[in-house]
Amino acid sequence: MVIVFKPNASSEQIQNVKNYLLNLGFEYHFSEGKEVTILGVIGDTKRLVPEYFLKLDGVSNAFRIQETYKLCSRTFHPRNTRVKVDNLVIGGNDIAVMAGPCSIENESMIYDIAREIRRSGANIIRGGAFKPRSSPYAFQGLGEEGLRYLRAVGNETGCPVVSEIMAISDIPLFEQYVDIIQIGARNMQNFALLKELAHMRKPILLKRGISATIEEWLNSAEYLASKGNQKIILCERGIRTFENSTRFTLDLSSVPVIKKKSHLPIIVDPSHPMGQSDLVIPMARAAVAAGADGIMVEVHHNPAEALSDGPQSLTFKQFENLMREIRMIAEAIGRNIASNEA
Amino acid sequence: MVIVFKPNASSEQIQNVKNYLLNLGFEYHFSEGKEVTILGVIGDTKRLVPEYFLKLDGVSNAFRIQETYKLCSRTFHPRNTRVKVDNLVIGGNDIAVMAGPCSIENESMIYDIAREIRRSGANIIRGGAFKPRSSPYAFQGLGEEGLRYLRAVGNETGCPVVSEIMAISDIPLFEQYVDIIQIGARNMQNFALLKELAHMRKPILLKRGISATIEEWLNSAEYLASKGNQKIILCERGIRTFENSTRFTLDLSSVPVIKKKSHLPIIVDPSHPMGQSDLVIPMARAAVAAGADGIMVEVHHNPAEALSDGPQSLTFKQFENLMREIRMIAEAIGRNIASNEA
Amino acid sequence: MVIVFKPNASSEQIQNVKNYLLNLGFEYHFSEGKEVTILGVIGDTKRLVPEYFLKLDGVSNAFRIQETYKLCSRTFHPRNTRVKVDNLVIGGNDIAVMAGPCSIENESMIYDIAREIRRSGANIIRGGAFKPRSSPYAFQGLGEEGLRYLRAVGNETGCPVVSEIMAISDIPLFEQYVDIIQIGARNMQNFALLKELAHMRKPILLKRGISATIEEWLNSAEYLASKGNQKIILCERGIRTFENSTRFTLDLSSVPVIKKKSHLPIIVDPSHPMGQSDLVIPMARAAVAAGADGIMVEVHHNPAEALSDGPQSLTFKQFENLMREIRMIAEAIGRNIASNEA
Amino acid sequence: MVIVFKPNASSEQIQNVKNYLLNLGFEYHFSEGKEVTILGVIGDTKRLVPEYFLKLDGVSNAFRIQETYKLCSRTFHPRNTRVKVDNLVIGGNDIAVMAGPCSIENESMIYDIAREIRRSGANIIRGGAFKPRSSPYAFQGLGEEGLRYLRAVGNETGCPVVSEIMAISDIPLFEQYVDIIQIGARNMQNFALLKELAHMRKPILLKRGISATIEEWLNSAEYLASKGNQKIILCERGIRTFENSTRFTLDLSSVPVIKKKSHLPIIVDPSHPMGQSDLVIPMARAAVAAGADGIMVEVHHNPAEALSDGPQSLTFKQFENLMREIRMIAEAIGRNIASNEA
Repeated sequence: MVIVFKPNASSEQIQNVKNYLLNLGFEYHFSEGKEVTILGVIGDTKRLVPEYFLKLDGVSNAFRIQETYKLCSRTFHPRNTRVKVDNLVIGGNDIAVMAGPCSIENESMIYDIAREIRRSGANIIRGGAFKPRSSPYAFQGLGEEGLRYLRAVGNETGCPVVSEIMAISDIPLFEQYVDIIQIGARNMQNFALLKELAHMRKPILLKRGISATIEEWLNSAEYLASKGNQKIILCERGIRTFENSTRFTLDLSSVPVIKKKSHLPIIVDPSHPMGQSDLVIPMARAAVAAGADGIMVEVHHNPAEALSDGPQSLTFKQFENLMREIRMIAEAIGRNIASNEA
Repeated sequence: MVIVFKPNASSEQIQNVKNYLLNLGFEYHFSEGKEVTILGVIGDTKRLVPEYFLKLDGVSNAFRIQETYKLCSRTFHPRNTRVKVDNLVIGGNDIAVMAGPCSIENESMIYDIAREIRRSGANIIRGGAFKPRSSPYAFQGLGEEGLRYLRAVGNETGCPVVSEIMAISDIPLFEQYVDIIQIGARNMQNFALLKELAHMRKPILLKRGISATIEEWLNSAEYLASKGNQKIILCERGIRTFENSTRFTLDLSSVPVIKKKSHLPIIVDPSHPMGQSDLVIPMARAAVAAGADGIMVEVHHNPAEALSDGPQSLTFKQFENLMREIRMIAEAIGRNIASNEA
Repeated sequence: MVIVFKPNASSEQIQNVKNYLLNLGFEYHFSEGKEVTILGVIGDTKRLVPEYFLKLDGVSNAFRIQETYKLCSRTFHPRNTRVKVDNLVIGGNDIAVMAGPCSIENESMIYDIAREIRRSGANIIRGGAFKPRSSPYAFQGLGEEGLRYLRAVGNETGCPVVSEIMAISDIPLFEQYVDIIQIGARNMQNFALLKELAHMRKPILLKRGISATIEEWLNSAEYLASKGNQKIILCERGIRTFENSTRFTLDLSSVPVIKKKSHLPIIVDPSHPMGQSDLVIPMARAAVAAGADGIMVEVHHNPAEALSDGPQSLTFKQFENLMREIRMIAEAIGRNIASNEA
Repeated sequence: MVIVFKPNASSEQIQNVKNYLLNLGFEYHFSEGKEVTILGVIGDTKRLVPEYFLKLDGVSNAFRIQETYKLCSRTFHPRNTRVKVDNLVIGGNDIAVMAGPCSIENESMIYDIAREIRRSGANIIRGGAFKPRSSPYAFQGLGEEGLRYLRAVGNETGCPVVSEIMAISDIPLFEQYVDIIQIGARNMQNFALLKELAHMRKPILLKRGISATIEEWLNSAEYLASKGNQKIILCERGIRTFENSTRFTLDLSSVPVIKKKSHLPIIVDPSHPMGQSDLVIPMARAAVAAGADGIMVEVHHNPAEALSDGPQSLTFKQFENLMREIRMIAEAIGRNIASNEA
C-alpha cells in the first residue's frame, strides 16, 4: 500500500500515520519530495483497507499496489495453464469450439444437434439442464433428465460435455454426467458454491459476472484454485453497460487483458450478449481473432420453434459457415481449431 | 408484446408473422397506419422472446409491454405491504433504523455497540457472521458463534436482529438465531437460495444486486413471493457504474421508483457504497428525505481499530448526530423514526 | 507517480527504469521491500503516462498519485468559494433555488411562471433559449428572443437569471441578457467553448457530463479557473448507467465527494435525470439533505400542454409544497433557503 | 407511440387519454385485450414524449416505436453508402487502414512515420494537430503548423489525410489542409459544430461519444445528413463502463449492430480504448473479423520517446505484422485491404 500525503500535511500528521502503522506491526519506506510525500507500507497489507487512511488528517490518497490473487496470476506462473478434457487441451495452440442448444428440450433434439455440429467441427457439446431465469415463471430446465441425455450424446459422439450447475446439492449429478462444470455469470460470486466445486476434480468453466471487474473474476478463480481445483477455464460472456441495442456488451478486450494478467485459458460466449444470430456470427469470428482459446455458441436444429432461445441460436448452415471462417482466422494468427479425434 | 413492422414490409411478410402467432395459439390486434403498422399480441406472451421477431423479414422492432412480476407489482396490489417484526412495522409511516457493526468480531464489541446505538434510537441491530469476500484470503466471519452473540444482544436490548445468509445449509442456524434474514447483493440472483428461503416464515431483506435493474430486483422478490414468503423488505445498496470516487453509486432514485412500481417497503444502506463515514452521513439523511422506509448503517465503537470495516463505520457520536438530523428530516415529510418500545 | 515492480523483476530491469527516468530529468525514491519494490518519481509527473511503464519489462503497475487540477482543489484552497450573484451568495450557508420552465415558449408563460415561483420562494429564474437536442428534428429553442424575455422577467422579479449557452458565437448575447451562464452536460468537455467562457466575468454553472468522472468534471472547471474565471458553480444532473427506469442515474453522492475534493459550490438538477415530476420531488428533497448548495428544478404553469418538457415539470402547487419541505430539511442540517430580498 | 393501460384502468381514464390525443390532432388504434389494453398513436409522434403519458391515471407504460433518424437508417436506404476519398472507397468491399501518430510532434516525424506505414499498407494517414485534453495543463497540439505538415506528407505519399477539428473557427484550416474531417468523441453532441460541418463537402469521420448509445450516435449523424453532408464514416472508439483495466471498453458489437440499423460505413479505433500496444493488436484484428470497414491505429517511430502517446502506439514492426494478419482475416470473410494506388 502507498499512502500519499497532502502538500500541506504537518509533521505531526505524518508522524501520526507512521505510529499507527508501527502499532499494527507494519514497517514503511518514507519518501519526502518537493511536491509529494509518500509512504510505502511493508508487510501483509491485505489486512489494510485504503479508505481507512483517507480519514486520517493530512492524508490525500491511499492505493493498494498488489494484486489480491496469486495462484491465478501470470506474475507468479508465467506459463499458460493447459486444461485437459479427454483428448482435448484447452489453453494451448488449439481452439475449442463448444456448441449446442441453450436448453436441452428433449432427447431427440440434443442427438440431432450434436451429430450435426460434430460433423461441422464442434469439439465439445453444451446443453443446459438447470436454467437460471430472472423470472420464477420461466421454464427452469429438464434437470437430471437433461443431464442424462447430454451424457448419452457425449458418449455417442465422443465429445466432452459441459453444463451449468446452480446448487451445491446437484454436485453428485454433475459428478456423474458432465465433463466440464459451468459456473454461470450470476453465480460467479456465490462463494458457498465456489468453495464446494473447488473439491471436484473436473475442469470448471467460470463465466464472468455481468458486472464483475477482471480483478474480481480472477479473485473468484482464486477461490477455486486456492481450495484445490486449478483446472479453470474462464469464459467472457458480456458485461452490463448503458448500451441496450444488445443484451450485454461483449467485452472482447478481456481476452488480451486476461492473457496478460493470468495464465488461465479464456473462451468467449457471443450468443448470450448479442441475442440475435446474425449478430452472434461476426462476434464469434472476432473472438478468435482477438486470441480466445475457444468459443461457446448456441446452435439449434430449428431456431424458429425454440421460442425461448431461438433468436440467438445459429442454424446448422450458419454454424457450418462460421466454422469455415474461423478456421481461416485461426490460421491467420498461427492457431488451429482443436480436433477431438483419438 | 407489440410487433412493429418496417415501413416497406410486404403483405406476405406481415401475413407470415400473423400465421406464426396463430400457430402458437396467440391472437392479435392488427393496426395499420400511414407511418407505422403494428401488431399487438394477445395471450400469455411471457413465453415469447422479443428478439425472436427481430429476425423475421419485415419486422422493425418488438417490445414486451407487461411487467414479468405480478405479486410484487403495485398494479395488482395498490396498498403498501407492512412487514411486522416484533413490535416494529416496516413499510408504514415509521422509519426503521438498522445499525451495528459490519462484522461481529467478538462478544463484548457487539454488546457495547448495541447498547449505545439503542440509546441513540436504533431499532434493529445488524451484524455480519458470514461475510461474502471477493478474495478467498480475507476474513470470512465468525459463523455460528457470531449469530449466537447477535441473538443474545437482541434479547438483551429488545431489538430484532438482522444478518446475512450465504448458503442453504445455514438455514437452520438463521431459523434459530435471526429475526430478519438478509440476502446480499451477490446472491440476489442465486435462485437456488431464493427458492429455499421462500419457505421460511421470517422476513427477508433482499439487497439489490450491484448490476441489477429494478425490474430484475423485483423479479427476484417475485421468486420469494410466488413460492410462499411475501414478507419482503427491499434494500438499495448502490450499483456499479463508471464513477470510482465512491465504491458504488448509491442509486437513491430507486426509492421513489420502487414506491411507484411496487408495494414492498424499501430501505437504504449508504455505508457500503460510500465507503467513508463522512460520506455516509449525508447520504443517510438523503435516503430519509427521498422517502425510504428505513436505513441500515454501520456503527463501530472504535472504527480506527476495526481495520476491515473501519472507514465506513460511524462513531457513536456521529450516529447520535445523524439520528437527531433524520428525526427532523422525517418530520419535514410527515414521518417518524420507529420506536420498538413495547 | 509510483512504479511498482514485479516480485521477480531483475536488477537490470529495475536499473533500466531508473535510467529511463534519469534521462528524462526525473529523480526518484527507491524502496525495496520483501514483498514489493516500488519507485516514487519526483518532478513534474504530469508529463508521464502511467500506461507507458506497464510496457517495460519487470514493471507490474504504475499509478498517478496527484490530482491533475490545482485551482479547484480543496487541498490548495481549504475555504469554500462563495459565488455572488446580485444579492445572493451561492456556496455559503444559504441554499439557492433555481426554477423555471425547461424551454421559454413565449413571453407570457415565462412571466406567469416566474411570478408564481418567486412567490413560493425561488430565488433564481431558469429558462432555456438554445436547446441541445439529440435529434435534428426536435424544437431547438427561441434563441435570442427567449433570452430577451428572460432578461425582462429577471428585471421585473428582481431575480438573477440563468440559461444555457451552446456556441461561442452566442457569447455577446449571453453577456447582454443573462446573469449566470450555463454549460450543459454535452459541452462539459467542449474545450473550445470552455476557453472562451473563461474570459467572461459572469458566474458559470458547469453541469457534469453524463459520463464524466468527478475527476474529469473538476478538470473542466480547472479550464475555466486557470484561464481567468473562478466564479464556478458545479451542477450534478445524473450520469449514464445501465438502469433505465429513470433517464439518468442522479449521482447524489457527488455532493459530499465534491465538498471533500473541491471548494466550489455544487447544486443539483433532479428534473432531467428523473423525467417524471413525482420522482423529481423526493430527489430534490434528498439533494438538500445531502448538503447541496442549491437545486435547479423545472416548473411549468401547465405541464399537460408543455408536451416536450411536461413530464418532468412541477406544477405550481407541487413546487410550493416542495419549498415548504426543503425549508424544514435545510433547517434540520443548520442551513436556510436563500432570499434575494434587498 | 404505443400507450399501455393498467389492467384495472377505468373507461373514464382510457377516454381521457383518447381525448387528449384527439385534441392534439392525433388519431389512434385502440386494442382491448383480456390481459392488456393498448393504444397505438398515429401521426407525427416525434412531438410526443413517452414519459408524459406515465403521469396520466390508468396508464402503465408508453413506448416510442419509431427510430428518430431517417436519412441514416437502413430501413429507408437499404444499400450501403460508399464514401469516396481520392481513389479510395470506404464502405465497399475494401477495408481502410488509417494510421499515424496520435499527435504531430514535428515535421520529420510525420514524414518518417507516413513513409514507413505506407510501405506496410496503410492507405490513409492520421495525425492530431488540435488535441482535446482533459487537463488544461496538457500539450494541446501544434495547431495549423501540424496540419501543414500533414498536408505535405499526404501529398508526398499520395494518401488522404484525416485530423480532428475542435472549433468552428478552424473550419477554413481544415478546408485547406485535410481530406477527412474527424469529429472527436467529446464533440459528438456538440450540435453547433455539427451544424457547421454539415455545410462542408468533405467526408466526416464521426467518432462515437464515450457514453453515447448507438441511437444517439446515429442521431448525431442525422444532424450532418439532414443539413447537407451525407459523406459520413462512423468510428467506434470505446465506451465508458465500470471496467478499468482498459481505458474504455471497445464495443465491437456496435459494428454488426450499425450494419443492421444503418447504411453508413463504420471503422474501429482500438488504440484509444486499449491504451497499451500489446492490447491494441488483437483488438485491431478482431475489428476486421467483426466486419468493420476499416481500422484507425496509432503508429510511432519511437514509442518510448513519445511519452504522451507512446503506450498505445505500435512500432513499425508491430504494424507490419498486424497488416499481414488482417490481410488474411479480411480474406477469410471475403474482403480485401484497400489499396490507394492509382
